[in-house]
Amino acid sequence: MKVVSAIKRVPESIKNHFDQQFKQVEFIFCHGIEEAEPYLSEADIFVTYGEDLNPERIEKARQLKWIMVLSAGMDKMPFREIHKRDILVTNVRGIHAQPMAEYAISMLLQVSRKAKTLIEQENKHVWNRRPVMNEVSGRTMVLLGTGAISQETARLAQAFRMKTIGVSRSGENKDHFDETYRVDQLNQVLPQADFIVAALPSTKETQYLLKNEHFQAMPEHAVFLNMGRGDLVSTDVIMEAVKERYIDHAVLDVFEEEPLPEDHPLWNEENVTVTPHISGISPFYMPRAFDRFGENLHLYLEGKEEMHNKIDPKRGY
Amino acid sequence: MKVVSAIKRVPESIKNHFDQQFKQVEFIFCHGIEEAEPYLSEADIFVTYGEDLNPERIEKARQLKWIMVLSAGMDKMPFREIHKRDILVTNVRGIHAQPMAEYAISMLLQVSRKAKTLIEQENKHVWNRRPVMNEVSGRTMVLLGTGAISQETARLAQAFRMKTIGVSRSGENKDHFDETYRVDQLNQVLPQADFIVAALPSTKETQYLLKNEHFQAMPEHAVFLNMGRGDLVSTDVIMEAVKERYIDHAVLDVFEEEPLPEDHPLWNEENVTVTPHISGISPFYMPRAFDRFGENLHLYLEGKEEMHNKIDPKRGY
Repeated sequence: MKVVSAIKRVPESIKNHFDQQFKQVEFIFCHGIEEAEPYLSEADIFVTYGEDLNPERIEKARQLKWIMVLSAGMDKMPFREIHKRDILVTNVRGIHAQPMAEYAISMLLQVSRKAKTLIEQENKHVWNRRPVMNEVSGRTMVLLGTGAISQETARLAQAFRMKTIGVSRSGENKDHFDETYRVDQLNQVLPQADFIVAALPSTKETQYLLKNEHFQAMPEHAVFLNMGRGDLVSTDVIMEAVKERYIDHAVLDVFEEEPLPEDHPLWNEENVTVTPHISGISPFYMPRAFDRFGENLHLYLEGKEEMHNKIDPKRGY
Repeated sequence: MKVVSAIKRVPESIKNHFDQQFKQVEFIFCHGIEEAEPYLSEADIFVTYGEDLNPERIEKARQLKWIMVLSAGMDKMPFREIHKRDILVTNVRGIHAQPMAEYAISMLLQVSRKAKTLIEQENKHVWNRRPVMNEVSGRTMVLLGTGAISQETARLAQAFRMKTIGVSRSGENKDHFDETYRVDQLNQVLPQADFIVAALPSTKETQYLLKNEHFQAMPEHAVFLNMGRGDLVSTDVIMEAVKERYIDHAVLDVFEEEPLPEDHPLWNEENVTVTPHISGISPFYMPRAFDRFGENLHLYLEGKEEMHNKIDPKRGY
């Protein structure tokens, strides 16, 4: 059995660990898809970040039975061809939960506690205690999505004594939410939100889900944070929301176009904070991702059906 | 019975609340000590932030039986004269816990997640995902002091799955600490610390407690944060610690001299973050402080000995 990995810069310690743990498996660790391409035809299992596959490569990979995606974003996967060939897809859903929850709490604290102003003052050697500090404690967070990332964010928010409201397709109750609602109830819950945190994947149902009316339904002091996918809301809608002061601030880690072009108006907007899609970055990412792969590989080799984080190629998540 | 308050800008709603709740008490709300000075001789109770009293004013306040300090820092109180006259002193110890715990977590996230670099990139419209993000989750926090502020900080740190180690005079076990040690064991615990958070009052025992050797005992990647009092450690010791890279970063909200002079070297030090003594600032401060005063006033009027947060004038805290 052959495993081909297109993940760049895999530490030797991880490679050795897999070679020793799975003696019956041959691992071909490649530095990116170009290096991996010649081996695709022999691969039983392909390990990828999910951004390097296309219909031609799926066709080329004649033996392929399983794609292990070491990422949670699946929007660049050629699911039609994958589905046709009945190839199993698993990902590392939930692996981003910890750094992304930290990102969300960190950025809400940054905005509430006026970090930009304090840093500017520090650069100018200005001792000024006037910037109005706010607490995040005791406020209400509405989370769009109730998956692993939102749950971990809600868990931390509850530690800060926040009320947490989750919004999902089903409205099903999940851990760490004080209340949960269905997406069609969104306009009812938004007026309660001090913070709105979006951690949704890009699907037909979430693309451009948030419109003008939603931002108008939020309180004027609300902070909107998007760390899911940039196509949840158009730039125009966000620009209007902050310019017309429907909300106080938008924190954006994801955009319709990435990298965000240098001349894009969002960069200059005072009430928008732009970060370069870094919410999920963690020094522990690769070891955690390969740990997940290892667990699934054990299950696969034992012929178990119960592998973690199987993807439905029809839904794309 | 007369209550004289020197607290500036008390909202009318709070004044009215006290007038209605305590009909038997006369409240004289003054805008600062100058305005309060003529009333001191009639005051049974004096409400202050604790920075405006001196031996002369204590002498002038012939009727004074109780000083309610709406602050936690007591280093400017003339305790010798207060003790001689046997005047009761209470403060609002613990009131800063929530905003200060938020400050600590916020700043550790800021340093770990490279907020200064990201904000600089944003100002320059630079999309660069290379700044090395770190997680705060799973790390070890050593807290100097195990009082209300440290406990609340430790509680949040545990929510981030940190290990929390408290250091105090007694080494007594307290809520939200995984382990506690005595001050004389400090050198044993410092090598374990990813974060060192100091929230100590200024007393004979804490003044210049931290020396070169302590910073040398910390790991090179450690972040030191002081939100207690500036005389815990001399500027020279901190400058050496960051310049010689004994530690990675110092976050300072308090200083030997405040305001920090414009030409002070700490402002320019790359591995130091300066904030202008803002950790305890909160929009909820005054209502919370007067709530505490109201509770104590009830107890005082009922002649109860069990008033909250009595200060030992000999110890000063």
